[in-house]
Amino acid sequence: MDLKELFANIKNLVDKEVTVEGWIKNHRDQKTFGFIDFSDGTCQEHLQIVYDEKLDNFNAITKLLIGCAIKVTGIIRKSSGKQDYEMQALKIELLGDCAKDYPLQAKGRPTREFLREIAYLRPRTNLFQAVFRVRSIAAYAIHKYFQERGYVYFHAPLITASDCEGAGEMFQVTTIPLDKIKGEVDYSKDFFGKMTNLTVSGQLEAETFAMAYKKTYTFGPTFRAENSNTKTHASEFWMIEPEIAFCDLEGDMDIMEDMLKYVVKYVLENALSEIAFFDNFVEKGLKDKLEKLINSKFVRIDHEEVIKILKEAKVDWEFTPEYGEDIAKEHEKYITEYFNGPVFIKNWPKDIKAFYMKQNPDGKTVAAVDLEVPGAGELMGGSQREENYDKLISRMTELGMDPKSLDWYLNLRRYGGCVHSGFGMGFERLIIYLTGVDNIRDVIPYPRTPGNCDY
Amino acid sequence: MDLKELFANIKNLVDKEVTVEGWIKNHRDQKTFGFIDFSDGTCQEHLQIVYDEKLDNFNAITKLLIGCAIKVTGIIRKSSGKQDYEMQALKIELLGDCAKDYPLQAKGRPTREFLREIAYLRPRTNLFQAVFRVRSIAAYAIHKYFQERGYVYFHAPLITASDCEGAGEMFQVTTIPLDKIKGEVDYSKDFFGKMTNLTVSGQLEAETFAMAYKKTYTFGPTFRAENSNTKTHASEFWMIEPEIAFCDLEGDMDIMEDMLKYVVKYVLENALSEIAFFDNFVEKGLKDKLEKLINSKFVRIDHEEVIKILKEAKVDWEFTPEYGEDIAKEHEKYITEYFNGPVFIKNWPKDIKAFYMKQNPDGKTVAAVDLEVPGAGELMGGSQREENYDKLISRMTELGMDPKSLDWYLNLRRYGGCVHSGFGMGFERLIIYLTGVDNIRDVIPYPRTPGNCDY
Repeated sequence: MDLKELFANIKNLVDKEVTVEGWIKNHRDQKTFGFIDFSDGTCQEHLQIVYDEKLDNFNAITKLLIGCAIKVTGIIRKSSGKQDYEMQALKIELLGDCAKDYPLQAKGRPTREFLREIAYLRPRTNLFQAVFRVRSIAAYAIHKYFQERGYVYFHAPLITASDCEGAGEMFQVTTIPLDKIKGEVDYSKDFFGKMTNLTVSGQLEAETFAMAYKKTYTFGPTFRAENSNTKTHASEFWMIEPEIAFCDLEGDMDIMEDMLKYVVKYVLENALSEIAFFDNFVEKGLKDKLEKLINSKFVRIDHEEVIKILKEAKVDWEFTPEYGEDIAKEHEKYITEYFNGPVFIKNWPKDIKAFYMKQNPDGKTVAAVDLEVPGAGELMGGSQREENYDKLISRMTELGMDPKSLDWYLNLRRYGGCVHSGFGMGFERLIIYLTGVDNIRDVIPYPRTPGNCDY
Repeated sequence: MDLKELFANIKNLVDKEVTVEGWIKNHRDQKTFGFIDFSDGTCQEHLQIVYDEKLDNFNAITKLLIGCAIKVTGIIRKSSGKQDYEMQALKIELLGDCAKDYPLQAKGRPTREFLREIAYLRPRTNLFQAVFRVRSIAAYAIHKYFQERGYVYFHAPLITASDCEGAGEMFQVTTIPLDKIKGEVDYSKDFFGKMTNLTVSGQLEAETFAMAYKKTYTFGPTFRAENSNTKTHASEFWMIEPEIAFCDLEGDMDIMEDMLKYVVKYVLENALSEIAFFDNFVEKGLKDKLEKLINSKFVRIDHEEVIKILKEAKVDWEFTPEYGEDIAKEHEKYITEYFNGPVFIKNWPKDIKAFYMKQNPDGKTVAAVDLEVPGAGELMGGSQREENYDKLISRMTELGMDPKSLDWYLNLRRYGGCVHSGFGMGFERLIIYLTGVDNIRDVIPYPRTPGNCDY
């Protein structure tokens, strides 16, 4: 029986015989009895197993090390210890031994930096056990949200010959033997007959699905070959990119807000112990923060208004806020504190935003939006897309892009194009927000960053 | 209102006013009235919209072309035509015009080959609309199955420095400017400081999660740089790889069978119209095939027994079946027909299987299994994994693999390793099976094959 199931039904299991399989997390043996702190990884809770010298193999059991895989049959009973219930063992069987050099011993709390070095073992610790379970639950919540509302899940291509944003540094994908290259590269000999890269976004392709299914979303890996070593950048990460036809910027914000609240609520309800753990050991007040988000009404305000508020603030800024420019982390922080809640900043200066965003009548801004969240900064970004063929072409030309390279994308505007919008959410940003674990390297099982590609 | 919602409640909507937004799929205009075949892509069903000269813009409406995006307000009523219900339009508004060169006209049925050339438009056709919706529904069913049973969803790394199978041709990932390479490549200058590739499987990494969470599954893209142009091979495809601790080969087969039946049942229940469409236009008898699978008990038989049956068969084989060797497509077909249902072929000759598979006591076979399904051949492959450290090392050495390169994987056997098993299912194979659409290029939105990387 899984521990998850056992704990869900534990009241009915008192005095009943149960068999579990899992691992020893800690072990204290006395002369005539012992306690095993036991977990099978199906839930955050551990089971205390009590055994005594009545067992045939008592001596062998007392020698079992932390990390061993065991199978235990026993009786569930109320406990007089700090836990409510425990198991009195009738039989303990060693399934898999654990070497003495096992790095996860009970004594001392290993640092997160050390645990990154043994990433293949860290999900066995309480912290990472909780992080990656929440990651799984949040991923499911996202699918559930969109599927129950009729969105079609779209698998965007990963290897691509086009660059969505016209920017973003990309990884090249090739089968050409590099050590045989002499001077110019003949891409007709490459696997796809042309130069290819790993995608930085599935948005443009997702728009083709929005024009067919009205509502679509991606949930898949994306890549950036940026040489930046920060807490929030990884070279490989997962993104959610919904795209909705017949939806303007206001509708887009409605969906962003509704989806985020749904996912946070789902995690609060389905990862009770994990959230309690983070609240205790990682970020005090995490649970309150999440509950507050669910119950708040997100503010919607123009970028220009935000700059005005920042300029009027009695703060000694490191970066002076300016109309027509991007805002810095310190500004994001100020503005969420100013409104005491999540803030949609909308209608951004067009010169700092992507070519496909809807040009506003003022000629200066685009219908773009960033969601700023207390304690985490930017969590999502979206925009209404430019549906006007001519405006899109002229913007691309202005930016030095070749419209021919995206003829299929432009054709979406010629073949029944309509008002449509979408947004992107970095999945790891969400997990950082949900867990309080503030380094992206600690919320991806096997993170890829400059110079790091293990496992 | 979405058409999906509209059709779900249509009886209650009769004589009510409703507004819909979507696209013109076909249009017949008479002198004083007209019919628009309308779809918004939220379901397979189309809505017939009837309009007449009472509308102010009647003349303009009669000129609307196939592909146009429109907004229609009208009254739902019972229809005297072939459909049960229709909408009598009160107002029709053009939201997005469609150019005359729009390739998806009503006349003539475009070939699948032609539609591949315009992959960005093909989800608008009835066939592909159904294929990619079923793809989305099936993906959700898979998540639902595993999540409801407590599996942790694991995102395997895509860029990797290790080669899971020791085989598989791989794509290289690099940021080294290829045209500047002179002779030997200095990988210390590459993004990750070493040579990296795109993963061919997340299994080995998934095993690290199985040893922490007991039950885990991957669902993500995998890559093969094989230069093969067949109906079943793509260079980029999605795989599901569950991995379960304390589970042997028999338990593995239980899960494979249970999961497949669940997913097929879910799709049958949630994609009624799509399955009916495939049954009518793509594969006669598809629905029966799927229903039969749900109700069948899968046969479990040793590879050796299969060879015996094949050898005794009065068939003029193209490839002679042999003990100790792989079986061919014609054999797979024969064996599923012989048993008239799905067949697990287990305990395969070790020399044709991967290094990590559990070595059976006979010294000749491994605890591997392939699931053969009528009409589709191999749909899944799995195995119990070798949990014995020494046996695993000696097998790797036998095969010329360097155990040091996978020390973390081997350590799983030293640190509380236990009996465990897993399997892999190519997601596109499943979609081919579910839809009857027999070319992998037609079940992936933007397929990547040798020489092809568009969009």
